[in-house]
Amino acid sequence: MTPKAANKNPEIEALVTSLRAGHPRAIGRAISLIENGSTAARHLLSACFPYSGNARRIGITGAPGAGKSTLVDAIAKQLRAAQHTVGIVAVDPTSPFSGGAILGDRIRMQSHHADPDLFIRSMATRGFLGGMARATADVALVVEASGKDTILLETVGVGQDEVDVMRVADMTVVVLVPGMGDDVQSIKAGLMEIADIFVINKSDREGADRVVREIRAMQSLASSHPVWVAPVVKTVATTGDGVASVMETIDKLAAWLNESGELQTRRALAWQKRMSEMAREELVRRLAVQGLDAAVFAQHAAAVSRGEEDPYELIPRLLERAWALHE
Amino acid sequence: MTPKAANKNPEIEALVTSLRAGHPRAIGRAISLIENGSTAARHLLSACFPYSGNARRIGITGAPGAGKSTLVDAIAKQLRAAQHTVGIVAVDPTSPFSGGAILGDRIRMQSHHADPDLFIRSMATRGFLGGMARATADVALVVEASGKDTILLETVGVGQDEVDVMRVADMTVVVLVPGMGDDVQSIKAGLMEIADIFVINKSDREGADRVVREIRAMQSLASSHPVWVAPVVKTVATTGDGVASVMETIDKLAAWLNESGELQTRRALAWQKRMSEMAREELVRRLAVQGLDAAVFAQHAAAVSRGEEDPYELIPRLLERAWALHE
Repeated sequence: MTPKAANKNPEIEALVTSLRAGHPRAIGRAISLIENGSTAARHLLSACFPYSGNARRIGITGAPGAGKSTLVDAIAKQLRAAQHTVGIVAVDPTSPFSGGAILGDRIRMQSHHADPDLFIRSMATRGFLGGMARATADVALVVEASGKDTILLETVGVGQDEVDVMRVADMTVVVLVPGMGDDVQSIKAGLMEIADIFVINKSDREGADRVVREIRAMQSLASSHPVWVAPVVKTVATTGDGVASVMETIDKLAAWLNESGELQTRRALAWQKRMSEMAREELVRRLAVQGLDAAVFAQHAAAVSRGEEDPYELIPRLLERAWALHE
Repeated sequence: MTPKAANKNPEIEALVTSLRAGHPRAIGRAISLIENGSTAARHLLSACFPYSGNARRIGITGAPGAGKSTLVDAIAKQLRAAQHTVGIVAVDPTSPFSGGAILGDRIRMQSHHADPDLFIRSMATRGFLGGMARATADVALVVEASGKDTILLETVGVGQDEVDVMRVADMTVVVLVPGMGDDVQSIKAGLMEIADIFVINKSDREGADRVVREIRAMQSLASSHPVWVAPVVKTVATTGDGVASVMETIDKLAAWLNESGELQTRRALAWQKRMSEMAREELVRRLAVQGLDAAVFAQHAAAVSRGEEDPYELIPRLLERAWALHE
């Protein structure tokens, strides 16, 4: 497969050229195409695909209030100082309706003085066909194709959605803080199995050592004995304390991922999941073409909600009809 | 449609009879069938459907550490004291891997002394085809069919998933606490538009009145002017303070939902969404029958992750082939 094979649309070709040159507005336009679920998106992603696969993708997640954004910004600053090119994709699952994500971008961009080798994009989760994880993966692909060698994927780490988003990354940094509420235990449980590195942020607060001990206790209880036991790094992101240590730990992890073959395994698994999702979306699109679209569901929904139609019987019947129409 | 029309499987028929009599073990078995995505699940749900639609479904959500479980338990206690039958479905998005949800059930059940008119089920989010919201809706349907007149749906309110889960309920109670971290603002933003009632729990802590003021400020800024402006109720769930007031507010809301027609609108919308999801699942199942299953995706994923195959070109091609096989 050659890069040019995918470029059938001259407009998309021009956009990819501009995007490859690193123009932030082109990257922004490309992401909008993806977010809007445009039919051009497939051609765009196909055209970007050959320029992907080489960047380091670092996932950073943690509970609300853990100081993730501050930590991500501090890491980005160090990466830029070391001449790395950086893309930040912040997935904001808390604003499904508002346009707050864009405002957030502006505020964060200002503190980086429009550095052309640093691209920041926040994504609200509204209206993504195929879910947040797929949208994140597509956006990360575009950002990587724009020439960024490091992609920081930032998300609030609570739900399954966020675990899926983290699987888009090559590695996962879980950010914790001392003195969280009752449910911290359960948040940690959910993220425990995908954490490659733990960062205790705001570690100047009381209780930081207790959090470290809790992590160690959980790790010693784990039924499997992983080759890589997630290191724990203490930081104060607001002052930059410990951020260099986070970077060193990331480098060590990256070396291990490469040598052990784990990187390849993880990426293959992520693609498998993503391809299933892509297939599902394409199916829904085809079914809509056969006349089974949202409007049909809406028509029946009122009757179902009044108890007049049984949805569990109805759906297979509707599908049978749409499927037959195709024949 | 008559109830008996759906009962084609005698085993399912027996299970539904036992479930309708309120036997907790039958409810548990039915839920397991749903969770395992058994082919019997459709018949089961079809058989339960005629006995659904009359219960009051109350969604209760909030940030980790807000004390949701304690509040839900306190509400359940009051409902039971008023001779209501209660089902609690707690969606735990934090443990995608562990069996922790089951342990949680046991601990909570103990404090209710195995009351036969109170059913509690925690759901981890692992492996639900069609997402957490659909699984929650199906489980709530089964619990309702077992004769519970009030269903409490409890979930951690952070991601889009949780917003979707809340749409399964007729109404949404958002639980906040004074003195949360930096990200509370954004959590509130995401839940703001689905909140029917705000509860400030742990309101004996400093800052409770500030949270009330913040909510009021946000409500006054809202661009739309809703007929129902979400009331704010202060509670201390551990002592039971304010819980009666929450119940009164829920009753008022329920009356308004009924009279305004909003209840019917919400339920129709929820069914519309759910039916689309059901259709998507059924499609994936059919495609697997045509030979396009997870194994095929896994086969290609390794090549894609090495950059040797373009997934954006591959998926439509694979689908085309499976689709053609059907003809």
